[in-house]
Formats: sequence, structure tokens, C-alpha cells
Amino acid sequence: MTTLDLNSDVGESFGRWELGDDAAILQVVTSANIACGFHAGDARTLRLTCEHAAENSVAIGAQVSYRDLAGFGRRFIDMDPEELAADVLYQIGALDGLARASGTRVRYVKPHGALYNATVHHEAQARAVAEAVCAYDPGLPLLGLPGSQLLEWGARMGLRTVREAFADRAYTPEAALLSRTQPGAVLTDPDVVARRVVRMVVEGRVDAVDGTIVDIAADSVCVHGDTPGTVDLARRVRTELEAVGVTLGAFV
Amino acid sequence: MTTLDLNSDVGESFGRWELGDDAAILQVVTSANIACGFHAGDARTLRLTCEHAAENSVAIGAQVSYRDLAGFGRRFIDMDPEELAADVLYQIGALDGLARASGTRVRYVKPHGALYNATVHHEAQARAVAEAVCAYDPGLPLLGLPGSQLLEWGARMGLRTVREAFADRAYTPEAALLSRTQPGAVLTDPDVVARRVVRMVVEGRVDAVDGTIVDIAADSVCVHGDTPGTVDLARRVRTELEAVGVTLGAFV
Amino acid sequence: MTTLDLNSDVGESFGRWELGDDAAILQVVTSANIACGFHAGDARTLRLTCEHAAENSVAIGAQVSYRDLAGFGRRFIDMDPEELAADVLYQIGALDGLARASGTRVRYVKPHGALYNATVHHEAQARAVAEAVCAYDPGLPLLGLPGSQLLEWGARMGLRTVREAFADRAYTPEAALLSRTQPGAVLTDPDVVARRVVRMVVEGRVDAVDGTIVDIAADSVCVHGDTPGTVDLARRVRTELEAVGVTLGAFV
Amino acid sequence: MTTLDLNSDVGESFGRWELGDDAAILQVVTSANIACGFHAGDARTLRLTCEHAAENSVAIGAQVSYRDLAGFGRRFIDMDPEELAADVLYQIGALDGLARASGTRVRYVKPHGALYNATVHHEAQARAVAEAVCAYDPGLPLLGLPGSQLLEWGARMGLRTVREAFADRAYTPEAALLSRTQPGAVLTDPDVVARRVVRMVVEGRVDAVDGTIVDIAADSVCVHGDTPGTVDLARRVRTELEAVGVTLGAFV
Repeated sequence: MTTLDLNSDVGESFGRWELGDDAAILQVVTSANIACGFHAGDARTLRLTCEHAAENSVAIGAQVSYRDLAGFGRRFIDMDPEELAADVLYQIGALDGLARASGTRVRYVKPHGALYNATVHHEAQARAVAEAVCAYDPGLPLLGLPGSQLLEWGARMGLRTVREAFADRAYTPEAALLSRTQPGAVLTDPDVVARRVVRMVVEGRVDAVDGTIVDIAADSVCVHGDTPGTVDLARRVRTELEAVGVTLGAFV
Repeated sequence: MTTLDLNSDVGESFGRWELGDDAAILQVVTSANIACGFHAGDARTLRLTCEHAAENSVAIGAQVSYRDLAGFGRRFIDMDPEELAADVLYQIGALDGLARASGTRVRYVKPHGALYNATVHHEAQARAVAEAVCAYDPGLPLLGLPGSQLLEWGARMGLRTVREAFADRAYTPEAALLSRTQPGAVLTDPDVVARRVVRMVVEGRVDAVDGTIVDIAADSVCVHGDTPGTVDLARRVRTELEAVGVTLGAFV
Repeated sequence: MTTLDLNSDVGESFGRWELGDDAAILQVVTSANIACGFHAGDARTLRLTCEHAAENSVAIGAQVSYRDLAGFGRRFIDMDPEELAADVLYQIGALDGLARASGTRVRYVKPHGALYNATVHHEAQARAVAEAVCAYDPGLPLLGLPGSQLLEWGARMGLRTVREAFADRAYTPEAALLSRTQPGAVLTDPDVVARRVVRMVVEGRVDAVDGTIVDIAADSVCVHGDTPGTVDLARRVRTELEAVGVTLGAFV
Repeated sequence: MTTLDLNSDVGESFGRWELGDDAAILQVVTSANIACGFHAGDARTLRLTCEHAAENSVAIGAQVSYRDLAGFGRRFIDMDPEELAADVLYQIGALDGLARASGTRVRYVKPHGALYNATVHHEAQARAVAEAVCAYDPGLPLLGLPGSQLLEWGARMGLRTVREAFADRAYTPEAALLSRTQPGAVLTDPDVVARRVVRMVVEGRVDAVDGTIVDIAADSVCVHGDTPGTVDLARRVRTELEAVGVTLGAFV
């Protein structure tokens, strides 16, 4: 019997601005990538999100980012690796402090947005993120794209690496994510999305944007938390996976 | 034989901007109040400062602040206590993450600037800070002004409270600090400052700004880290204290 | 025949975070208080908002604020008046730059949130705001609460002052706004709100929260832009005012 | 008789943090690139800097930047051109507001740091900066590197473009600036620097880092304002230029 983790981005409100229905999504997923204040997430929001995650027995991951509230962490920043490593440490520690106060802890790390995309190929930044995780706690797994520099450097440093696939994002024939700036990059039809995820998990394959069939291996599947309809989509994915006998559970 | 802690504010550079001679001051003091990024301190600066503190066996305190880089944390902000508590947790955790990566840990908490001053009298904010420290780790002492709401609420919650006096700040007849906006608020003559500190420790008294002699009880004496001449002043204070048989050592 | 200005707060999105239905509200009001980036409003949002205001022939006001994105400008900050005056100048200029690029200009100034409330009584801050407006352009009117220090200092410096009333906020018997932290501070029933505004304009009176009838004089009435139902409420107010023969038009 | 502009970066303090000796440098240069708050420069600093520039009859340029206080604007950010154009407009307007209050105006625009470097080659960002300047005031000149996309797009849009050379930076054989991350990128010997500038202006040539002699054409020469010794270096450059009969004067 297969076990799969379902993860989502949460804690992305900031002060007066609300984003996503975290309370609902935390009842569906098994892992929560919680923002750490650099792309989103004021401290009170993050504390409440940690509490809700703990109440729902959802594992907490630190979703570390470039320092870029105005750009929501979606713009590549050509940072010095030492600065990046320190920023990542700062964010993991900050979220872990709030998690501790909620009776739980940060259990894994996943880069957000442009940092996620950059660390697929950018060796120095990938290494900096992995080093920061090692320096904080070498027992923390790294969640990322299979084949990425991030997971490669994480593995080389002895970190557990967890392979992620995306329920609602289009793939290129090279098994990379189609950029959000391209049409069709984000899938929204629950039927389509649920079928894709079942196929990813059962067959280990996904249809790329050009019709190619691509091999894909996933320990955790991401459903995004910040778009309308996400909660229904996540519920649908969960139901379909359970229907074919997949058990949902956090990877940590 | 008396033991006394000597503390100073460090880690207050930010990106391109440098402030204070932290490397030098960390060779003189026994405790370091390290900024946590809200009033000063980019993550790389904070990480290096934690490393220097560890190398010099100086105890690390989290100097938590209002979120106010432009005002250096010196402007009162009328924050909601829940927001403040979460901000304090976030900052302690962030600094503790960097301290862990340096092989050490945050060992106490001291509010910075306007938050320090506000929590002398502002009950709701004092309570919020104390609650945050409890929620993070009830074993962390709170460093603050004797008689302050902060230490009162800390004690009520079971925290160890550590009484602080100021080497280079003028006192009012009520044993409060004279506001920095007043002339003569900051003392700079090393002779005068060293004599004051010795008298504080040996006699438990200090001359107030109006000539009154005020009782003062201190477990830790602060020499500020961000003014020219501070390092010499701190060395002088240390030498004079040792000359009268006071042992310098961290309170934790 | 009476003419009245109807104003609303707009431009309060920030990056990924959207707030308010500005496109709709700009079709109803005659003046738009546009955020200036310190409490809300990234530059692209502000530019688009200026363009929409210009297309709808709505007068643009600079809604200046404390520098406080995390608190949405709703927390009092005990700023030095010189710093505040410079911050206000900076914000007016920034918005005016975006307005120029949209073929229009900033036509008045209104403080936002906690700065609005502070400048009712805080003389030094009220004076700083008025001085900044004078220094930028002594022809710009100030929009504020009748009897406030802000309007008093503005008048003393020769600025045109415009008296504001609030459609959807409860009043105290002293004709002050009931704090948002109090229950009943914000009114949401369109019938109630529309009747209140008509009475304010026609009779110059409003029912205070305790039932007292309070005299009120208004050149401009504010309907808030950031709450659900605001657009309907604003339309209803406009319709009822026109029904009793009031002409809606900007005060500049 | 040749006339040359001497420019320097000023207004780069921020709150508690001071950087550069602006009062001294403003007595030497003829144009001042004043920060606009995105990489440096709190509003009060900027206002004072505008006043000092006005007192010294120094022309004010808006030194626009990526929004990056932590990185001092020295990190490339992969921004959307529309967001960049709006950010540039915002900054020009903000500084112009402070300049107006000082009895003067912004007279030209120069990108700062990583934005300066990016707009040498990055067509979309160069175009966005030029469009923003046009939208603000098509009469404002653009100061930048000869041959850059920035000046090319500026010229295409009808802006006056002003060619800049650097007194204290090493050049590559392609007449580009050697990156600050390379050794020898910044020259500090006043003799060497002064001789280079005289040669640039009189012969139109400079020695590249590899010994090649490179043609260079400059309407304005930059001496950086944020390094120790800058004021002496700038004075020396000015003296040597005047000694060979070059008149110093702003290009606007």
C-alpha cells in the first residue's frame, strides 16, 4: 500500500491582508509549508497557523524565501550565498520559535517561489540553502524538485531529501515546471488535477504541456493554497487518492 | 566577593551600514544583547555576531524590538499585545536559530529601545513580552529595569528576572532613566562613568541628575555599544571593577 | 442646492495581496484617498489606481500614513515631528509622481488610520503634517475631522481645510469617532448608513452611539473602501443623497 | 575650454545609520545623485541632503534603485518591467517632493547599483526605467554608461542622455566596469585617480585593468561617496582638472 504526503502553502496573509483559506486547507493536507515572514506571514498569522497545523496533526515545514514582501518572493534575487544562508537560518529559527510556542516544531524545509525555482539550477544558492538547513538541524528533511541542485546538495550533505510533484502545475517535457508567466501554467479543473495526481502516484507518470509523457517520482504532492477553489481541489485530490487505496500521511 | 555581569548592545549593523565595534566590545563584556532584525541586524551580521560572542564565551541575549528599522526601534508603537507577543517570539526564535548554527544558544531576553522604556510602565506590552518569553522557554531570564512592569510580570509568570543598571545613562530622582531627548542623558567621560559603576556595585547608590542620591540594585550593568568611545569606556569600567575586587561574569 | 463630496480609501492592495474593489468604488465616489506606500499600496497598484481615478474624473488625495505595512498604519507611532514631516512630503511626492504619469495630480491630502486619529489631538504631529503640505504646495487642501488639531494648524498656516464626516462610523457624544476596537464602531446596514448621511447633510446632525443628537458639519463624507459590501453601501448613499437633491462633486 | 560635471552618490544614510560625508562632498561636486529611499535614504536624510545640495548650487539627480534596503540595491532583482517602471516613478516623485520643499527640483535620473549594472544589458529593465522618466518628465536627462541599453532606450524615447565615466573604478577592455566582486575594482590612490580622470577628459582614454588603452567619452565623472577618503579624492580630482583648464559645472 502506497503512502503519500499532500502539502500546501499556508500562512501567507500579512497584517491587514488575508490570503488563502488556511483553516480549511489544513483539514485536508498532511504537511503545511508555512511562510516565514520574508515573502509573507506576519508573526501573529504564523503563530495561529502553527497552532492550527498542530491541532490538525499536520507537519510544519518552513517555507523560506528571499526577503521580498512587495514581490511575494516570486522575483529572483542575485544574493550572495552567505547572506542567503543566514537569511534561511533566520527564517527557520523564527518559525520554529512560533511552532514551539504552539507545542510543535518545524519538521522540514521547502524554499518558496523564486528561491524554489532558482535552486533547481543555481548551484551556489542551492548549496547555501542546504548548508543553512544542516547548520540548523541536520535531521530536517529538504522538500524539493527531483533532480534539482537543492536536493543534490542536500543529499551530499547528508540531509534526507523528499521529492515533490505538483498537482496543479503544468510540466515541461524535461519534467520541469512551466513558468507561471506562461499560459496554462496553473491547472484549475478538479477532475483533471485529481486524475493527474492519481496517475503520478500509481503509474509514476504525468502528461507534459506538449503531450509528452514524462516519468515522475513523488514522495509529496503540492496543492497550492493561495488560489480560489484550492480547498475543493485539494479535497478532490485526497478523495481520489484514497479511492485507489493510497494512504495520506506526512513524510516526517 | 561580588560577581557582576557587564552587558552591551551589539549586532546593530544592517546590510551596508555598520554600527559599533562589536569585535572589540565582545572582548570586554560578559553578556551581549544581540539585535534580532526588527530594529537592526541583517541575518549575516547576526550570525557573525553570535559566532564572535561564542568565541569570546559571552552569553547571548535576544534584544527584541518593535518592527521599526527606520526608527531603530526608538519610537513607541501602540501595538496590540497579541501582535507584540508573536513578534517577540519570532525574534527570539530567529536569533536562536543563528546562535544554534554558531554552537551556542540564546540565554536571556532584553527588550530594546522604546520597547524597553514602554515596558517599564505599559502593563499590556510588558505582559506580552513576558508571555512570549514563557512560551518560548520558561527557563530564559528577562533582563530589565528594577521595578518595571516587565520584571514584575516576568516574576509573576515564574521567569527569573535580572536587574539592570546603566553605566552611561543619567538617572532621575525616581531611579528612572533620563530620556535621551534630554541634555546630559548620556554620559561619556570614562572617569565619571567608571566611578559611578563602582559606586553602584559597592554601595548600591547612584547620583541622580538633580544631585539626589538614589538606591540602585543591579545584577548586570549596561554599557552601550553604538557610541564612539564605548569600547574604551567599557574597558575602563571593567578595570575599575576588577580593581575593587568585583568578578565579572555572565548572570547565566 | 447643496453640493457634497463623497470620498473613499483606495489603492490599499500590496503586491500579491488585494484589498477592496477599487474599480467599482471609483465609479461612485467623487474623491479618492489613495494610499502612498507606507501603510499599503505598491507602486504599480498606485499607478493603476491613479489611472482609474483619472478615467472616472475622481479627484486624487494623498492618504499619507506612518511607515507601517505590518500594522496597515493603524498603530500610533511616537514619531519625531521632523521625521514625520519628511515622511509626509516623501509620500505626497511619490503619489504625485504616479498621478502625473496618469495625466492628473494630487489635489488634496488626508492622513490615514492612526495618523488621522493622532492628529485630532496630537499637536506636534498635526503641525508636522500641515507643515509638510505647506512645504509641498500651499494650494493643497487638508481633509480631516472638524475641530481637529490637524485642521486648526492647517488653517493657521493658510491651507484650505475641508471638514469630513463618516458615513459608516459610530460617533461619540463629543462628535469624535468611536474607536474601531469598540463594538458597533463600524456600521454596515445600507439603510441606516444612507439615512444617517442624508440627515448629516440636510440637518447637520447625527445620532451618537449613546443616542445623543450631535451637530456635525461636513464638506465631504467618507465611505470606507476596504470592507465587504462597501460598494453597495456607497451606491446607496449616493442614490439617497441625489434623491433629496444633493449634488455630488469633488471639493477641489 | 572643456566643461565637465563631477557627480557623487549622497543621501545614503538610513535612520540611525550614517554613511558618507555628504556635507563635505557637496562642496566639491557639481551634481548629486541622491538616494530615493529604496536602497538607502530615510525621508529626513533626503530632505536635508536636498537642502544642502541647494545651498551648494549642486544639481539634484534621483538615484533610483531596486527596493532592497538589506542589500543596498546591489543585488539584481528579476522584476517585471511594469513594476519596475512604477517603482522608478514613485522614487522620482518622492525625491522631487523633498527637493521642492528645499526650493529646488530633481534635474536628472541615474539608476543605482545593481539596477545601473542591469540596465547596461537588460533591455526590458532599461526600457522600463527610460519609460518611467519619460512619463514623469520628458525633459529630465538620463545619466548612464555610454553604449548601455539605458542610454539607447532613453535616446530612442527622446530623452537627453548624459555619458558617465567613473573616476575610481577599474574598466575592462570592453569599457565596462569591473565588477565590485573582483580585486582591484575600486581605486583609492588619489594620485592615480586624478591622473586617470584628467586623461579621460583631455585624451578621451583610460587604461583598462589588463593594460589595454580604451576610448572613453564622458560628460560627467562619478566619484563615489560612500568610501573613506572619498572627499579628499574628489577634491584632488577637481583640483587637477582645474589645473589643466577644465571648468567644473553641472550638465543641467
